[in-house]
Amino acid sequence: MAEKVVLAYSGGLDTSCILKWLLEKGYEVYCFMADVGQNENFLVAVEKALKIGAKDVIISDIKSDFVNNYIWPAIQMGLIYEERYLLGTSLARPCIATELIKIAKKLDAKYISHGATGKGNDQVRFEICSMALHPEIKIIAPWRDEEFCKKFQGRKDLLDYAKKHNIPVSATPKEPWSTDANIMHISYESGILENPKTVAPDHLYEMTKNFSETPNYPYHLEIHFNVGLPTKVKDLKWGKTYENNVEILKFLNEIGGTYGIGRIDIVENRYVGLKSRGIYETPGASILFKAHQDLELFCLDREVYRLKSYLRDRMADYVYNGYWFSPEADYTKNCLKLSQKTVDGVVVIELRSGFCRVIARESKKSLYNQELVSMDVHGNYKSEDATGFININAVRIKQYYKTFHNDDN
Amino acid sequence: MAEKVVLAYSGGLDTSCILKWLLEKGYEVYCFMADVGQNENFLVAVEKALKIGAKDVIISDIKSDFVNNYIWPAIQMGLIYEERYLLGTSLARPCIATELIKIAKKLDAKYISHGATGKGNDQVRFEICSMALHPEIKIIAPWRDEEFCKKFQGRKDLLDYAKKHNIPVSATPKEPWSTDANIMHISYESGILENPKTVAPDHLYEMTKNFSETPNYPYHLEIHFNVGLPTKVKDLKWGKTYENNVEILKFLNEIGGTYGIGRIDIVENRYVGLKSRGIYETPGASILFKAHQDLELFCLDREVYRLKSYLRDRMADYVYNGYWFSPEADYTKNCLKLSQKTVDGVVVIELRSGFCRVIARESKKSLYNQELVSMDVHGNYKSEDATGFININAVRIKQYYKTFHNDDN
Amino acid sequence: MAEKVVLAYSGGLDTSCILKWLLEKGYEVYCFMADVGQNENFLVAVEKALKIGAKDVIISDIKSDFVNNYIWPAIQMGLIYEERYLLGTSLARPCIATELIKIAKKLDAKYISHGATGKGNDQVRFEICSMALHPEIKIIAPWRDEEFCKKFQGRKDLLDYAKKHNIPVSATPKEPWSTDANIMHISYESGILENPKTVAPDHLYEMTKNFSETPNYPYHLEIHFNVGLPTKVKDLKWGKTYENNVEILKFLNEIGGTYGIGRIDIVENRYVGLKSRGIYETPGASILFKAHQDLELFCLDREVYRLKSYLRDRMADYVYNGYWFSPEADYTKNCLKLSQKTVDGVVVIELRSGFCRVIARESKKSLYNQELVSMDVHGNYKSEDATGFININAVRIKQYYKTFHNDDN
Amino acid sequence: MAEKVVLAYSGGLDTSCILKWLLEKGYEVYCFMADVGQNENFLVAVEKALKIGAKDVIISDIKSDFVNNYIWPAIQMGLIYEERYLLGTSLARPCIATELIKIAKKLDAKYISHGATGKGNDQVRFEICSMALHPEIKIIAPWRDEEFCKKFQGRKDLLDYAKKHNIPVSATPKEPWSTDANIMHISYESGILENPKTVAPDHLYEMTKNFSETPNYPYHLEIHFNVGLPTKVKDLKWGKTYENNVEILKFLNEIGGTYGIGRIDIVENRYVGLKSRGIYETPGASILFKAHQDLELFCLDREVYRLKSYLRDRMADYVYNGYWFSPEADYTKNCLKLSQKTVDGVVVIELRSGFCRVIARESKKSLYNQELVSMDVHGNYKSEDATGFININAVRIKQYYKTFHNDDN
Repeated sequence: MAEKVVLAYSGGLDTSCILKWLLEKGYEVYCFMADVGQNENFLVAVEKALKIGAKDVIISDIKSDFVNNYIWPAIQMGLIYEERYLLGTSLARPCIATELIKIAKKLDAKYISHGATGKGNDQVRFEICSMALHPEIKIIAPWRDEEFCKKFQGRKDLLDYAKKHNIPVSATPKEPWSTDANIMHISYESGILENPKTVAPDHLYEMTKNFSETPNYPYHLEIHFNVGLPTKVKDLKWGKTYENNVEILKFLNEIGGTYGIGRIDIVENRYVGLKSRGIYETPGASILFKAHQDLELFCLDREVYRLKSYLRDRMADYVYNGYWFSPEADYTKNCLKLSQKTVDGVVVIELRSGFCRVIARESKKSLYNQELVSMDVHGNYKSEDATGFININAVRIKQYYKTFHNDDN
Repeated sequence: MAEKVVLAYSGGLDTSCILKWLLEKGYEVYCFMADVGQNENFLVAVEKALKIGAKDVIISDIKSDFVNNYIWPAIQMGLIYEERYLLGTSLARPCIATELIKIAKKLDAKYISHGATGKGNDQVRFEICSMALHPEIKIIAPWRDEEFCKKFQGRKDLLDYAKKHNIPVSATPKEPWSTDANIMHISYESGILENPKTVAPDHLYEMTKNFSETPNYPYHLEIHFNVGLPTKVKDLKWGKTYENNVEILKFLNEIGGTYGIGRIDIVENRYVGLKSRGIYETPGASILFKAHQDLELFCLDREVYRLKSYLRDRMADYVYNGYWFSPEADYTKNCLKLSQKTVDGVVVIELRSGFCRVIARESKKSLYNQELVSMDVHGNYKSEDATGFININAVRIKQYYKTFHNDDN
Repeated sequence: MAEKVVLAYSGGLDTSCILKWLLEKGYEVYCFMADVGQNENFLVAVEKALKIGAKDVIISDIKSDFVNNYIWPAIQMGLIYEERYLLGTSLARPCIATELIKIAKKLDAKYISHGATGKGNDQVRFEICSMALHPEIKIIAPWRDEEFCKKFQGRKDLLDYAKKHNIPVSATPKEPWSTDANIMHISYESGILENPKTVAPDHLYEMTKNFSETPNYPYHLEIHFNVGLPTKVKDLKWGKTYENNVEILKFLNEIGGTYGIGRIDIVENRYVGLKSRGIYETPGASILFKAHQDLELFCLDREVYRLKSYLRDRMADYVYNGYWFSPEADYTKNCLKLSQKTVDGVVVIELRSGFCRVIARESKKSLYNQELVSMDVHGNYKSEDATGFININAVRIKQYYKTFHNDDN
Repeated sequence: MAEKVVLAYSGGLDTSCILKWLLEKGYEVYCFMADVGQNENFLVAVEKALKIGAKDVIISDIKSDFVNNYIWPAIQMGLIYEERYLLGTSLARPCIATELIKIAKKLDAKYISHGATGKGNDQVRFEICSMALHPEIKIIAPWRDEEFCKKFQGRKDLLDYAKKHNIPVSATPKEPWSTDANIMHISYESGILENPKTVAPDHLYEMTKNFSETPNYPYHLEIHFNVGLPTKVKDLKWGKTYENNVEILKFLNEIGGTYGIGRIDIVENRYVGLKSRGIYETPGASILFKAHQDLELFCLDREVYRLKSYLRDRMADYVYNGYWFSPEADYTKNCLKLSQKTVDGVVVIELRSGFCRVIARESKKSLYNQELVSMDVHGNYKSEDATGFININAVRIKQYYKTFHNDDN
């Protein structure tokens, strides 16, 4: 009897050829498509997969799981990779893998397969997550299979194979880069972008308007947080309020997109040891990130913030590298959540063409004490104490400079 | 014989009253004014100080020292405090203190004095730096002196005292906030800004245009770095090139200011344990920071970058807290400098209303390898190896999930 | 009416003089003595205090609180300061301060007082803890009081004052060092020990036998842990079992002391910026520390251990510096506790003259997998995978060495 | 023409069989033996290798390189893995690999080979180092070769193969564990030690005496350091002085071994994701480690020490994992070296049965200031300043406790 494989299927050329190739290898193939908010015609893909020979196609709408259990916690934790990337793809992988493994278990399939390449991060994220959730699972990664790679040495080979096997190929010519899209972001890489000094063309961007097409007036939003999680967004222009997480993100993507917010163009370090160039647009989550950052520093104790930042940076690496499910990420997630107990309040954020900035904030749990800091009142702070504070802190410093006559530093 | 005091003098109401008060106390007072690029009428201030009774007024133009030995290294180290503040004031303090101590030594003065308040960071920065450079120096900080504070309980008392002693007072009414300006930035705090939900008015900003007044077309610059230090800026619109550090910063302040770049509005943690709200505009250095960040991540090894980031965050705290001269900062500066050996190259940065972003970069020392990362060539990377990489990395993860049947993570 | 002061009283010369001095100042003084397991004749001290004029003397036996809520958590967290010091005094301070504040609140006293010196850590620990627990409390620290310090410039002045006021003075001449003792340890510092090249004399040590007087045969104990906390100690020689925390510590102190275990002689960094030399003997807790360390590394995931170690080092500093009660310590304690969920099991520890070492361990929650690691079985580990693991990890390294032709490294 | 392979040869059963197997595969095999101080009869091994068919056997005495360029820097950096392991094997690997690659280059050999197993760390250390030094090198790792592993499934298969091919086999039966020895340490693992609750037998240890056979009197040594490197050891019993690094280590191994110093029994985390149990004896380096630790904390500034410790812990991981040659280790080595500029001086260390401890220390570069810390003199330290120091540090703490009424912490 044929072994069952669940294939993470996209409907594109690569995974269509993989589907056919797996069938040729004698597997019974179930295609799995995750709806994480990418703009895709699932019906066309289903039809295509069935036509090629898939036993079945399973489409799971996991947008809400993705938003609630991956994007929202990422905002709460303040995750950012190498100072700039908000991890849109990295966060989607464990969410998709969870569903993929759930289906594999239900179908009693011993194998899963995917179309991720051998030089990328996604293969790692996919597989580490899958093995965490199902340590016995077997994985077929054609792009790392010697025979497969020999057979398909370039796009031309895939096209020929598709033609030969009557696999429908999209009429629109492929853009000279590859993309990954979901409700949080779209990423662009490869092709012409591989040269880091090539400026990305304006028409590349799909979620965000070009700066020349954005409004020339500001737009104000109120963003509410509870324990570091966004809970409500109020559109201060039209007065409308959003309280459902998916709705919040969709609204922020729309308004953020209109303002061209959340574009980055970076060279990043992949887990497999390569540097790669990526362009990302992340309108809604960029707004949430900024808002959370402001409120967090407003609320948290100075030293707790520093501890939390250290853990945050580790967590960003775990997520990027594929360790969302791991002892270290489990632990760090719990610690970071603990740090957010008092990150409650509301910020006012101003959207402008290409960026946004917080202009006001309020919280009942902040350690900010206006009376204490005021230049006009004492507020229980004795200025004379600062003398001793400085002098004692200088004891060590003076000893060092006295000892080493460090005149030239 | 009267003891000599060197007073860090600004020409404003506070230090003018302090000057008079020190004279009343029987000191011989030398006023010191540091020209760090603030927009100030030094002649008026000199006249005022002499009129009040200063023995002498020394003005030192330390702009170039400030740019070369403080701002440039800060860019090289990538210093940023609590994710947002570029340390414009914190960096100026040790530079000013160095000159102040140099003068005190030359004059053989045992005392220095300043007008920094008792709740702020500047008193700490000033004094720790001074004591490092001159462990025997004695410091008079009137705003921490019980008698002085009793005498001057508010602005009203200062004004009365000034009037009584014929100290000229500026005709223009004081803005309802206080500022600190230098060639790197202007900061705004106190007064109406103490309420963190008060939106700062548009007319507050002095170095940067309001977004509604900025050009609606992009502006492109080429910024060159050697060992992480900015060495040249080329204006791609007009072709002009700037190679002198002070000229580079001035040009970037001007063009960055025209584009409204480098404004932040934050609540930060002061070293003395208070949270305070600050607004900063830092046009030129914000552009340099972004450019350096891009190039650094393009050039540096992944792990070296992580080590360097850890040290960078520590250094930002040291600088903010006043420890520019300290064993830990000495050490960290040297380590960070070591990390920048290979941060050489050029980035193209696009200025837009309110922000800027790098759109292309190039370096001969980058570890970026286009052939290696390319999806179209193998470039000496064996995709099959990724299987073993993933599987071995999963050993630990599988063991954990098997041991704890962690189904609900 | 006289203001009430609660004085942390030891019965020694210093606090007896302080008591008298406070009375002279017109305070109503309540003496507080904490029984943290030090070897002290409380009755004599009470009599002395009352004779001097104390309104009352309150003795609180807080040994069990100290063991359960400070020492045990410290073992669980693995706290060690600057690689060697187990924080015996640092941990006692917040415990004592908690009781002191409780009494001050009960007596409705506005003031507390203590005999800690102005160069030491204990003043900080005492006062920060007290202010955390009772932000309105006022603190009288005579050894920082100008008038007091002038009056009592050395031991001679104290003795004269005591004589003058009929304060009984211990007949035994003072040892040429000072000590602090509790159920966890005894510390020795000052006096002849201030010279770091003076070897401490053998008769200094009180809790531990000199090495020449220890048994020449080994002694074996079984130490059980649950969630990182010691729960049971079995004496493998006599078969006796200890399950009560205080009893466990007492037994380990006795047997550890008999074996001369837990002595250190170090120079440490005080929070007030001084380096000081300290000698400590900590027999029982040293055994527990070693046992916990072994079990923790046996049980915990590699990466969780690293995160935990980072937090542990921070926490040790917090505790040493006096921040047991602080936002950062609250947070870190919770995070460290989280890390210990699976630190369950038992170790066999061998005591030898002057040291102890774990020789065997067992746990049901360890991630150790004998089959997986065995050289004789495959245990689901594919050795071939290591090739890919190594090769992918080498990608980055090869790129670096190729780029920089780093032949001379 | 046959391809040349340089085989890291030990003379034992495994590498002898590998030698034969490589010859059968048609390679021309050069055996390489590194003398890193292990107790080995090289002549016998040479004869054996030539008899089996090696083209040549190259023996390199790299003891002095190992001591000067690996062990001494490790002491200087204070390297210790997971709090206990001094990295004796980890440090030898890059030293051996360097020589191996040098020989491969000289012989113009494209291949190297080794007998490290597929579950261990040594394969990684060997290969990453080799690829760093010679990115084009090809590596044959028989214990990861499917065919080889199938042929040799256990010790029995190796013995049969040896017999069949007239490979001489040691007459003494193999101990039920495996060892790795060099001038720094001997490690023991596998076999009966794989059960972590099996107590290691007394006769296992080779470099150190059992505790019952050690002297019952102390032994004192003076150890001198310059920039953190050991420069001289003086035997205070016999007055003899050692100044050559290799001689220092040999002497300390001998005297340390006589005292049974430097044994540990641990479970550690391997880089390939396994936990393994290891027993190590490291007499001389354990003494040096303790001595350096004491002097470092005596000399270094508090905050520099903390920075350095962070880097030290990273470096220990790099070395353990095989990254001695890597961008991150290059960088960290340089930073750690910088930290040791002032670690100069001498410590007196007392050896006792099973352990050693520093009992006195002296340095001209220490920041220790006896006058400053003394309880009997003021030494330019104003105790009153501590009040302000404490109060300002408490501002943040009081704000937190006031805000959250945290009565139950």
